[in-house]
This record gives sequence, C-alpha cells and structure tokens, in this order.
Amino acid sequence: MKQLNAGLIGYKFMGKTHSNAYRQVNHFFSDSAKINLTAICGRNKSAVKKSMDTFGFSSFETNYKELIKRDDIDFIDIATPSNAHLEIALMAADYKKHIFCEKPLGMNRREGKQMLDAAIKNKIVHQVGFNYRFAPAIRLAKKMIDDGKLGTIYHFRGLYLQDWIVDPNFPLVWRLDKNICGSGANGDINAHIIDLARYLVGEFHDVMGMTKTFIKERPIVEEMTGLTATSNSSGKKGKVTVDDASIFMTHFKNGALGTFEATRFATGNKNNMSFEINGSLGSIRFAFERMNELEYFNNEEDKQLQGFRTISVTEGSHDFIHAWWPPGHVIGYEHTFTHEFSEFAQSIINKKPAIPDFYDGYMCNVILDSVEQSVSERTWITIE
Amino acid sequence: MKQLNAGLIGYKFMGKTHSNAYRQVNHFFSDSAKINLTAICGRNKSAVKKSMDTFGFSSFETNYKELIKRDDIDFIDIATPSNAHLEIALMAADYKKHIFCEKPLGMNRREGKQMLDAAIKNKIVHQVGFNYRFAPAIRLAKKMIDDGKLGTIYHFRGLYLQDWIVDPNFPLVWRLDKNICGSGANGDINAHIIDLARYLVGEFHDVMGMTKTFIKERPIVEEMTGLTATSNSSGKKGKVTVDDASIFMTHFKNGALGTFEATRFATGNKNNMSFEINGSLGSIRFAFERMNELEYFNNEEDKQLQGFRTISVTEGSHDFIHAWWPPGHVIGYEHTFTHEFSEFAQSIINKKPAIPDFYDGYMCNVILDSVEQSVSERTWITIE
Amino acid sequence: MKQLNAGLIGYKFMGKTHSNAYRQVNHFFSDSAKINLTAICGRNKSAVKKSMDTFGFSSFETNYKELIKRDDIDFIDIATPSNAHLEIALMAADYKKHIFCEKPLGMNRREGKQMLDAAIKNKIVHQVGFNYRFAPAIRLAKKMIDDGKLGTIYHFRGLYLQDWIVDPNFPLVWRLDKNICGSGANGDINAHIIDLARYLVGEFHDVMGMTKTFIKERPIVEEMTGLTATSNSSGKKGKVTVDDASIFMTHFKNGALGTFEATRFATGNKNNMSFEINGSLGSIRFAFERMNELEYFNNEEDKQLQGFRTISVTEGSHDFIHAWWPPGHVIGYEHTFTHEFSEFAQSIINKKPAIPDFYDGYMCNVILDSVEQSVSERTWITIE
Amino acid sequence: MKQLNAGLIGYKFMGKTHSNAYRQVNHFFSDSAKINLTAICGRNKSAVKKSMDTFGFSSFETNYKELIKRDDIDFIDIATPSNAHLEIALMAADYKKHIFCEKPLGMNRREGKQMLDAAIKNKIVHQVGFNYRFAPAIRLAKKMIDDGKLGTIYHFRGLYLQDWIVDPNFPLVWRLDKNICGSGANGDINAHIIDLARYLVGEFHDVMGMTKTFIKERPIVEEMTGLTATSNSSGKKGKVTVDDASIFMTHFKNGALGTFEATRFATGNKNNMSFEINGSLGSIRFAFERMNELEYFNNEEDKQLQGFRTISVTEGSHDFIHAWWPPGHVIGYEHTFTHEFSEFAQSIINKKPAIPDFYDGYMCNVILDSVEQSVSERTWITIE
Repeated sequence: MKQLNAGLIGYKFMGKTHSNAYRQVNHFFSDSAKINLTAICGRNKSAVKKSMDTFGFSSFETNYKELIKRDDIDFIDIATPSNAHLEIALMAADYKKHIFCEKPLGMNRREGKQMLDAAIKNKIVHQVGFNYRFAPAIRLAKKMIDDGKLGTIYHFRGLYLQDWIVDPNFPLVWRLDKNICGSGANGDINAHIIDLARYLVGEFHDVMGMTKTFIKERPIVEEMTGLTATSNSSGKKGKVTVDDASIFMTHFKNGALGTFEATRFATGNKNNMSFEINGSLGSIRFAFERMNELEYFNNEEDKQLQGFRTISVTEGSHDFIHAWWPPGHVIGYEHTFTHEFSEFAQSIINKKPAIPDFYDGYMCNVILDSVEQSVSERTWITIE
Repeated sequence: MKQLNAGLIGYKFMGKTHSNAYRQVNHFFSDSAKINLTAICGRNKSAVKKSMDTFGFSSFETNYKELIKRDDIDFIDIATPSNAHLEIALMAADYKKHIFCEKPLGMNRREGKQMLDAAIKNKIVHQVGFNYRFAPAIRLAKKMIDDGKLGTIYHFRGLYLQDWIVDPNFPLVWRLDKNICGSGANGDINAHIIDLARYLVGEFHDVMGMTKTFIKERPIVEEMTGLTATSNSSGKKGKVTVDDASIFMTHFKNGALGTFEATRFATGNKNNMSFEINGSLGSIRFAFERMNELEYFNNEEDKQLQGFRTISVTEGSHDFIHAWWPPGHVIGYEHTFTHEFSEFAQSIINKKPAIPDFYDGYMCNVILDSVEQSVSERTWITIE
Repeated sequence: MKQLNAGLIGYKFMGKTHSNAYRQVNHFFSDSAKINLTAICGRNKSAVKKSMDTFGFSSFETNYKELIKRDDIDFIDIATPSNAHLEIALMAADYKKHIFCEKPLGMNRREGKQMLDAAIKNKIVHQVGFNYRFAPAIRLAKKMIDDGKLGTIYHFRGLYLQDWIVDPNFPLVWRLDKNICGSGANGDINAHIIDLARYLVGEFHDVMGMTKTFIKERPIVEEMTGLTATSNSSGKKGKVTVDDASIFMTHFKNGALGTFEATRFATGNKNNMSFEINGSLGSIRFAFERMNELEYFNNEEDKQLQGFRTISVTEGSHDFIHAWWPPGHVIGYEHTFTHEFSEFAQSIINKKPAIPDFYDGYMCNVILDSVEQSVSERTWITIE
Repeated sequence: MKQLNAGLIGYKFMGKTHSNAYRQVNHFFSDSAKINLTAICGRNKSAVKKSMDTFGFSSFETNYKELIKRDDIDFIDIATPSNAHLEIALMAADYKKHIFCEKPLGMNRREGKQMLDAAIKNKIVHQVGFNYRFAPAIRLAKKMIDDGKLGTIYHFRGLYLQDWIVDPNFPLVWRLDKNICGSGANGDINAHIIDLARYLVGEFHDVMGMTKTFIKERPIVEEMTGLTATSNSSGKKGKVTVDDASIFMTHFKNGALGTFEATRFATGNKNNMSFEINGSLGSIRFAFERMNELEYFNNEEDKQLQGFRTISVTEGSHDFIHAWWPPGHVIGYEHTFTHEFSEFAQSIINKKPAIPDFYDGYMCNVILDSVEQSVSERTWITIE
C-alpha cells in the first residue's frame, strides 16, 4: 500500500480534527493510502510536544520552514489561523510539497490568487478544507442535483447560525481580530455555505450584503482555552475588528436566487449550518446538526402523497458509509474530515486533481471580498 | 335541499363541538343536507337556555323524553356522559329517530349490544362519535392501506397520551367516577385508538392489558368548570374509581401485532394521540397535534432516497379539504366533527348505513371490556 | 348585546374567510358584539346571490356604492382584489362607515396614504387584514418580547414560501396581473412577514432587495376556479407582470438585522410562512403550517438543559384559546380571521383604535414600494 | 500513564467498534489509561490476520484459549456471537483476566449467572456491552432523574425498531439462528432498552409479553458479508428459529408502568431505539438516530411557556463531550464504545467496579427469559 508522510502545522481545533482524520483513514479507508503521522509543527515547544504524543505523531518541529524542508514529508497540512496561510503555502509549493489548507484559503482574494498560482506553477496537489462537502448527505445532494432530480434550480437559502459570542463578556479571542482572521462570521462560516452553494448550485453572478458588529468592545484576556470564556482580571477592553454577522443576496449565473446569512448572534443555534434548495422538479433541505439526514421533496410524484421525506443517509450505498456502520448507526462531525483526507490522499496517490482545490478556495475569497465591498459601496458587486 | 332537524342532548364540551359542526356543515358542505339547530336539551334550565342562545338553537328542552317525542326532530344527538347513553338511545330508537351517539357507545358491551340491537330493529341510521376517523390524514391513511400501499401489515402501535390530571390536587371530576363514565383512560381515550386500529388494520383476535390508578384519592369539589381545577374549600377527598392509564397488547386476526397505551399521566403530552403502522411495502405515522400531516415511508422506492415523508394533507384532492382552504392552510380539531356530521347527514338523506355505526361502537365496548377482563384474570382474553 | 351590521364586498377566498369569521365570532366570542351578516356585494349577480345563501347573509348588492349608502350597514369589509381598495375605502370613509380592508392596503404607498388620511379625517375605526397577528402563537410571541424575554433583538429572518405556480402551465390568473394586484409575491405574501416584523421587532430603517419573475409568460384562460389550474384550450400565452419572488434585507431602527424572502417557487412549501427572532436573552421560531406551536429558547437557563422548546399554544391562558377547546386540541387557519374580527368588532363597540390599522397598512405599502425601488436603483432605500 | 493490554476475540461488527474504541480512548481520553491493541483472536486465520492489520493490533491468535493463557494480556474482550460467551468468560475469569463482554451476556439466565459468579469469585473487573448508556444524552437523562427533575416516574415506553429483514428473501444469517444467538429481536435489541429502563427507571417487578416470527423460512446462503443479503444460488430454505418481534409490558418495582417493543419488521426504521419517560415533574424523550439530542419537558415552569425542548447534548459540560468538539459539532454511534472502554479502562486502573457489570448483564438475561416464559405460559411472570 502507498504511504504518505504528513506534516501538520497547527495543533488546536483543526490540528485535532486533521490528525484524527489521518488515523481514521488508515483504519477505515485503508484501501487507498496510508497517512503517516510524521511530524507536527507549532511555535510553542511544550504544547506541540504534548500534541505530538496525544495525536500520535512521530516527530515535531517548532519552525514551519524546517518542516517544509524535510525530505520525509509528502504533504503540508496548514491548520493555522488564516494570516499564516500564505507564506506557508508559498514556501511549501516551492518545495513541491502537496498542500492541504484550511479555509478560508487567503486573508483576501489577492492572497488566495497567489496561493492558487503557486500551486499550479509547482504542479502540486492542492485541496482546501471545505469539510462539509464530505458529509454523505451533501454528496447525496450533489448526486441528486447532477442527476437532474431537482430540475431547474430557483432558490438557494443558506444559514450558518451560531451563538458563542452572544455574551458581551465573552473575551476578545483571536477569531475576533481582523489581523489574524481577515474577517469574522463572513470568512469563518459564510465561507462554508458559499462553498456549498458553488458546489451544488453553481457560480455567482453578483452579491449584495450587509454586515454588523453588535458588540464593539470585549474584555482582553491573556490566555484562552479553546472557545471558552475565561475570567478577565484586568478589566481592560479591546476593539472587536471583525463582523459578528454577515448577510448577503446573490444572483447565480444560472438564474437562481440565493440568500446567505452567517452570524454568531443567533441565540440557541450552536452549529446550525443549514440550507434549502428549490428546483422545478424537487427540493432538498440539510441541517448540519442532523448531518445524517437529508430532506427531499419530489415534485413528480402523485400530488396526494407528496411531502418532504427525511432520508437517513446511512445506507451502504451512500458515499463513504460502506466504511462505517450499518444503516441508522449515525456518524458525526469528525467523519467529514476523515472523508476529506481520504480523498486528498487518493488524489496524491493517483495524481489527479483534488476537489475542492485552491481554485475553490480562491473563488470563495473573491465572493467574501465582494460581499465586504458591496457593504461599503452599498450596491451590487459583480463577481469577476 | 334536504333539511334535517337536530335534537341535541348535552351542552358542554361535546355539545359545543356538535353544534358547531351542524352550523359549519351548513356553510361549507351545503351540497348534502341542511342541519337545523332545532332543539337542545339539558337538565339545568338556565344553562341550557344560555347554550341555546350561544349555539344558535331555536328551542330547548329540559327533559330528553320530551325532546324525543317531538315530531319536528329528525335525529337525536347524544352528547351526554356515558351513563345516560343507553336509556336515551333505546327510547330514541323506539321513536324511530336516527341517532348519533358519542363514544364510548355503552358503559359496557351489554349496553352497547342493546343499543345496536335497538338501532337495527328500528331501522334507523346510527353513528358513533369516533371523530378522528374524519381527519383528512386518517382518511388518506385508510385509502393508502386499502390501495395496498402498505402491503402486509406487521405492526400497529397506538398511543393516546394526556397529562391533565398529573397534579394530585386536580379534583374528582365526573370523568374520574366509574358510575358516570364506566372507565377512565380506557373508555375515554383508548376507545379512539382502538377504533382507528379496527378501521385501519382490522379486527382483534385477543387482548392482554394492564391498568393503573396512580392517584387514588382526590379533592371533592362542588362545582367544576370544564376541565379546570378549582379551589377545594372543604379539604375532603374522595376515591378515584377509574383507571389513570390503560395499556394492552393485541394479536390482530390478520396476523399483525398491536400495542395500545392510553394515559392521563404522560406529563407534557396534551392531546397526543398518535400511531405508527408498519407493513411489508410501507409505513405510516400520525400524531393528532399535527393532524394536518401524515408521515409515509415507501419501501418500494430507490433505497438511496427512501425516508419518511411528511404529507401536508391539505390538498383539494384530499378528503373534505375541497370545502375549506388552499394547500397549507391548516384545519383544526373541530373540523373532524364537521366532517362526521356532514357524512351522518348524508347517510340519513341517502338512506345508507353510517360509518362508523353502533356495531363499531359495540365492538369497541367489547374490546374495552376484554382489556379489563384480561387485567383481572392476568391472561389473554379472546375477542368474541 | 351590541350588534354590528356587516357589509362585505367580495365573495371569493377572502369573502369566505371573513363571513365564516363573523359567524364564529357570534358563537364563540359572543361576549363582545354580534356581527350581523347584513349584506354581501359583488358584481356578478348570480354568484353573489349564491354566496349570500351559502355564507348566510340577509341581502346582497351588485354595486358597492349602493351598499355603502345603506343606512343599515355599520362597517364595510373590503375583500376585493387590491385595485378596488382605494375607491371603495374613500367612499366608505366619507359615509362614516367603519372599514376593514384586506392587505395590501393600497396598490402603493400613495393609495395607502389616501386611505389612511380618509379614515383619520372621518374618525372611523379602520383595520387592515394582517390576520396572522391573531394566531395565538404570534400573540404569545408579542407578549414574550414585550416582557423582555428575548432581550435585545439581533436578528429577524422571515420566509413566506409557496409553490403554487411552479408549473409553467399554471395559467395567468389575476394574482399575476400587476394592474389588479400591484405586485406578486411581494405584496401578497411579503406583506405578511413585513407586518409581523414591524409588530414584533419594530420599524425599518432601510431596505435593499431583489425580485425575479422566473416564468415570464403563461397560458391565458377564460375561467379560473380558485387557485386551480384549468385546461387552456386556446394555447395563447400572456405576459406575467408581477414578481415570482421578492427577497430583501433590512436594518431595523433598533439595530437588529432582518431578512425577508417571499416566493411562489419554493417547491414543496405550501403555505410556509415562518420566522426566527434571536435576542440576547432568547429566541423564538414560528412556522404557520404548525401554527399551534411556538418554539422558544431561553438563554438564561442552566446551560446543560437549554434547548428550543415547542410550546403548544393551546392552553386556556393563551390569547383567544379560552373560547375554543382543551389543551392540545388544535385550531386552524380560519381561526385567525375569527380572532381578528372579534377584535375589530370590539374596537367599534368600545370606540377604541383597531390594531393593526390603516397606518400599519400604509407602512407596509411604504416598505413594499421601497423594496421595489431598491431593486430598480440597486441600492439601499431609506424608509421614510 | 498506566497501560492495559487488550485481547479482543471477534473481528466483525463488534470487533470493529471495539478496536476503534481502544484507539480513540488513547487519543481523546488519554488522561485515564492507554489501551494497547495487543492481540486479536478469531478462528479464520487469514481473516483475523487481515483484521490485525486493519485495526492496528500487534499480534493475533486463532484459538481463544491461547489468548487467555498469554501473560501479556490484561483483559479479554468478548465480541463473539452469544453462544461463545460462556466458555470464554469462565476460562478468562479463571486466569484472572478482566473481562468486557458484549450483550446479551449469556444465552440465558443460567449462563449469565455462571459468568457473574465466576467474575465475582475471581475478583476481576467485569463489564457488559450496553453501549447506549454511554451516549452523552443518556448520561444527562440519568443525571436529571437522579437529581429529581422528573419526580415520581409513571411511565417508561421503549421502542427498538429496525427493518433489515422485512424482505422475505433476506437470507438465514446467524442472527436468525437460535443456537447461535439465543433469541432474535428479544436478545439483540430488546436487551438494550431493558438495560436502559433498569438504568433510568429501576428494577422490574414482572413482565408479560408476546413474540412473533413473521417470516418462518428464509434462503440458506453459504457466505454472508455483514448484514447484507447476498444471492442465493441453491434456492434452499431453512427455518428461522428466533423471534422477529418481541413486545412486552412491565410493572416496575417503584410503581411505574413500562412497555417495550423490539422488532426487525418496522419498515422505514433503521436503528430507531427510542424511549419516553413521564414523571410527575417532567418528561424526557430520546431517539438514537438523533443521539446528540435529548428532549425535556419541565412541568414546573410557567404553564404558558411549557413545552418539550430539544437539548443539544454537545456542551463541554455534558459527560464525555469535553474530549471532543465545540457545541453543535455532533458525535456518532462509535463514540458510545469509546466512552464505554474509557470507563472500563478506568475501572481496571482504579480498581473500582465497572458499570454496567455482569450483574446488569445477568438481570437482563433474567428479564429476557421471563418475557419468553410469559409468552409460553400466557400470563405475568414475576422477575426473581
């Protein structure tokens, strides 16, 4: 069996999901490629060493440049905050390492374009971390649309609703700092529904949006653990420099209309990414917190018996499920990563382009930037 | 248009639903027959007079015998507590009045048989008040089963869950007095799911049950308004003489297995009558509090796309809906009565048997009695 | 008891809902006022006569001017297509008749303003037909918001999804003719969610929208029955002059963000009017097809036990329910009209302003017009 | 960190879930103990060797006796069909190996008792594989009940609905052979809801049941892969010797009433294990296919605002979740095994009794046997 040596940069939330994915690929999707947990990289030596042990890596680095230079690394996995993506990716591409990069690809379209160009120029396999594409229900949705089951698509309406910063005393974490993230709800979560809309419906013609920062100042804290608010001894506050909510409309190139809402102020919604697509022949609905389900309305049936059905996307015939459990034995969030790395590994082994790739990451950057531009210019911005 | 003069006995909960039904039949199902609100009857003169005005009747009686003797009355509608059904029905049948009688038909199978025999002997139209049969979703379920869409039926599981007497200080109302009602949850609400099971699945071979009275004594109160607990000045308590919950299993004659649970102690369930039926080719689910919906699983479809669908039973092609509103404009509890009286009136006008009739009421009595017998004898009782 | 003589203009869908409401007010809300079905008016003599009989009116008119002139009429109920609202309302106000007018109030803000001014000048009671405000669940939502249970409101997201014209062969009915309706999904159904947003969240600062007509030509037919497509013998097609979908964003004056989508192309959605409101202390969700339910998330509870709860808005303590049935015995679409006319009648009897009144109708017209203006000008339009 | 060497017997469905659990414990619950994948055992050498590689074990055995004798094994994990449990467990206990055994513990109560006695006598840690206890939602339910949030419990109603053998051509797999399994739906899936009822509500006083085999003969096949029906070349049929459905009622010792239904003929239900518990102060509902959710009705709140809430049991404060992902990022079926082995390992390391242990396995055997006895004797059987 082919083997691939991974070099993972970042060891927090995404580092944890990615390293788990490598291991699970090896035990559940072992037909394709074995991903060796070769090296993990982070600037804090004691923390990265601990992660090496917990995650099961063979070695660690504290300088990403050293990691990239290593001959025993086949691909670089960028799981850092957004502001480090560009320089890592450019160097990795230069060293002909294949690259997996978390979303959003760049801090903006310019960065995204540089990364895309570097990847193409160096002929590496490049994939961007739109993990939700790899939920079996999303793959089923894609298949149904490609098979024409929805007919002409009229509407896409996507929501990504969270509530983790509703409390005004929640501190000023790095995800609220524009210099580190580029944007707030826009780049963090709108990015996902934008990508799903591109995947399922098609390209965007133009966008028009609004954004808002509801809580403009928040407590400054020294240390943060995960996303948990900790006590704030100093009492000092700092400025929130990203959006709390980002909402926009779009005309798709194929004539469909789209709406998008990403917010961290939707009290009661934990990780409620959902969408509905309406077509001439049918409709589908998905909500991530019930990710094993896809709702489907078939407009071609006997009118007396029509209705939205809830498909349990857990049959052996559904994408990825053969590797797991019998029907009705549900899978979870982390499986989307296992699936995405299974396919990334196959792309490298089989020397075929990965999907979604840096072009998809770049196009998402373009749309995110255009949403922001439409906010400041108060008019529609054509995607180009 | 044919006209029918109604003589309604009882003016409380069921008197209110029935009189509304007469009026709504006249305005929404006017093609069949006009039901005149001729006379209402009750023992309390001032209360019955007030009801006459509120409900829109032309006259009133305080003695049901006088009502039955009146030449201008075409049918007698028995909406009293159960212990008065028998004597009213026997006299009404004797006077050749058509009869609509609330469920349960008799206090027991013996009474039910007497009423059925009298109705047959006097060749009157007789109907029993199993109103849930007239929900459009139930009619659709019946049609689907008759059309073979469920194939061989394997399972029926019915629940009728309420919680209105969970509070131990809820007083000793007439519905908790065996002399007035015959039984508690068994006759009041199990009756409904038993009837739906007979309607949709078929006859019962045998039953085996358990019943329980959780709260054995309750405050005695002088006056009750509806189902609302009122203050209990005296502090005296009386014995609850009926079951709080009645649960049983059945073998249907066609080989299916059935389970039934009726309880007034299912905290949080207000009027949750629900059932699921599983067959070789499909399954259906119904829950009354979402009475405009029927869930359906079609086992003959593409396995990748199967799932329980929620049919909005509000299309013009669904039974009764043509009389009401456009799709998605839902109807409510009271409509089941309007539909049942529309069909009762048509049966009289067209001289055809009503469905469900006193035989259905009698068979329900037989099953209810057999459940109680199985409890005391601790073994299966054959329905015969 | 006080009595009011109704003069109803229009005998189709809305004529049917309104006349039912009068009768039900009389039998279920009889404490307030009796609404006499005095006269019904329509241009087609045989049709209006038939409606007089079916609905239970005492007389009819074929010319609305004659109706308005009648001394025995206390209020005029305008249930015609939108293009007739203005002239009827101006004359009725002139004759000091109280007015109930269906929504949208005017064909545009200018008409709405004229009607509002006439109503004020003539000191009549005036109400506009935003019937959804009278669903018990909506009243509960309003009460909760007024009580501060949601805290600071951050988001309103409203949808009104239908699918009755997805079929391109569905004919060119009057609701698709701009000269009769003023607009399509915008005025017909966006109007409802706009009104609910104003009621529950507050006034709009500005709007920015997009609209689309997916099917630009449709078969011309001679006769239409309700909303049902009938065969089209000629084969001729005519131009659809209204929008099929209308989507917009808003900034509320209080700082909340709002999104609105009204469409007749959401396949599988019959009458799916729904919204979610997120506040700092809680959130609520409502969907009309389950109109007896309100979902509520309380952000102040123990975090381990938080969740959206489904309130069955069928308790005697909920608005309007005391008049109907016990808990869990659901009501339907038509009840919203009964409630609205019960309150309209009380407003007249008690000489107090009605809610919602022509100002609410006018403000809705302003917002609808502004949405259209934002579409043509491609920028935000301030509501003023 | 303490280490434990695992000896796993069985490499199919349960072998796969258990070995995954070991590995995930090591990476996600590393604070407690490290479980080494020391040896896997099965009779088919090539198959067990392949599993060794896929699952990540260091060695294999083809004779369980050799495995038990090995000094380097700390615990034996019995993941075989039921008919092999007894002899393996007795020998393992004799060799003082700690034992984890899949459910049902014995083929019958006698076997269960022998295993329990052997475990006690040899002072080993013993745990039985009721994995559903380890879903975070079930743990929350337990905590709520222990905290008194449900008050006096009145009702438990449990269902375990599957449909994998509805097709009469589905072959005669080992799970349909009484000699291998002991029973059908009864021991396979009723076992789970019986255990949950004992865990959450308490001990059973008596039971009364019915069972049925709907399809009495099925095609014989040479080879089976998982639960998938394969083609049947011979055309021969064999007798199904177990129940397809097992339904029973119980009186709990604390006065509550219980109903249980396990069936493989509930078309459309894949792995629908669900229950509802009603108490004087509240109710809860759980359904496995939405295992991250727990529904809760609080009867002590303001009556106007009561309703079943859906708790997303994905907060860091919920049992086990701290090891996984942020709120709303759902987990799946396999996680229940990871949690159960995390606790099993801790029990060994900390020398404390495991929960659920062989006594729980034995009591489940007693109840399962009593259900069968009640079927043949047609009366209530006291649990003793």
